Amino acid sequence: MPEIVVFAATGRSTEQKRGLCRDITEAMVRNFGVAADQVTVQIVESSLDSKSKGGVLFSDR
Amino acid sequence: MPEIVVFAATGRSTEQKRGLCRDITEAMVRNFGVAADQVTVQIVESSLDSKSKGGVLFSDR
Amino acid sequence: MPEIVVFAATGRSTEQKRGLCRDITEAMVRNFGVAADQVTVQIVESSLDSKSKGGVLFSDR
Amino acid sequence: MPEIVVFAATGRSTEQKRGLCRDITEAMVRNFGVAADQVTVQIVESSLDSKSKGGVLFSDR
Amino acid sequence: MPEIVVFAATGRSTEQKRGLCRDITEAMVRNFGVAADQVTVQIVESSLDSKSKGGVLFSDR
Amino acid sequence: MPEIVVFAATGRSTEQKRGLCRDITEAMVRNFGVAADQVTVQIVESSLDSKSKGGVLFSDR
Repeated sequence: MPEIVVFAATGRSTEQKRGLCRDITEAMVRNFGVAADQVTVQIVESSLDSKSKGGVLFSDR
Repeated sequence: MPEIVVFAATGRSTEQKRGLCRDITEAMVRNFGVAADQVTVQIVESSLDSKSKGGVLFSDR
Repeated sequence: MPEIVVFAATGRSTEQKRGLCRDITEAMVRNFGVAADQVTVQIVESSLDSKSKGGVLFSDR
Repeated sequence: MPEIVVFAATGRSTEQKRGLCRDITEAMVRNFGVAADQVTVQIVESSLDSKSKGGVLFSDR
Repeated sequence: MPEIVVFAATGRSTEQKRGLCRDITEAMVRNFGVAADQVTVQIVESSLDSKSKGGVLFSDR
Repeated sequence: MPEIVVFAATGRSTEQKRGLCRDITEAMVRNFGVAADQVTVQIVESSLDSKSKGGVLFSDR
């Protein structure tokens, strides 16, 4: 409220995900004026053969 | 048609997911007047270190 | 937590949407054991020329 | 089944959306072997001040 | 790459959305080490009678 | 830009996913007139007990 979904390829560390979720939440609070505990962030990770850019799978790059 | 996506942290049993999908489908039929077989529900589960509330990962709580 | 997104074509009344959000929330509480006030439901409506089934736009049916 | 969501900025014509939905559906049938009438595509359009690339709103470009 | 989707109720100003998209993009760059111009953010806004918390529509609060 | 998300049950081969991503990207280029390298496709796969049609889990069919 709002809810943020991050669509990403797998491969990030817990530390990276911890920092991202913290910073996106702070961005919501600062810009939208919502309380932090109202903000959920979910990172949806797909395998490298389930994501493409330019029509080419990440696993084929 | 409609399609429902449930963004959740991992950790639910098959029985819980079976009940949820059945009940959400019934809610669609009852309120939107669609046929049950037109309703798809997908639960998108992320690991506990890929979801946060209040800027804190579920794995850190 | 969980967050539910309903992808639908436009054209439902407020009464229909009120009932749907209430019933989906109850389904989450009953099956996943979460508190009702932790559940958000967002209906994402697209115009009839922005949704297709079987490759045919809803506006062309 | 599968369901495809296209996140896009507003501004496409019905003809463009008709072609896109038809072609994505054909891509699903050809590659995943599903029946066409099982495939739904929904284009989720946001206004130009609700989408950014490189941190810059489309309305500011 | 990654792509971020923000599900929100309507009612934010362009200035609020500009700041949010900028800050989320910076959060991606800082934590995930991606180039800013690879990051897209889309805010998906729904009307107040299309979103609920605790089973109650925002328009009924 | 646009970003495409495909919600699917698990079980497709890399070859199927490679073809799908390539063909959806081509569909975007052909119909929306965007450059191929601006198009991302992410396939979000859920287990067979996390997706339903007609209220019945795929794992129960």
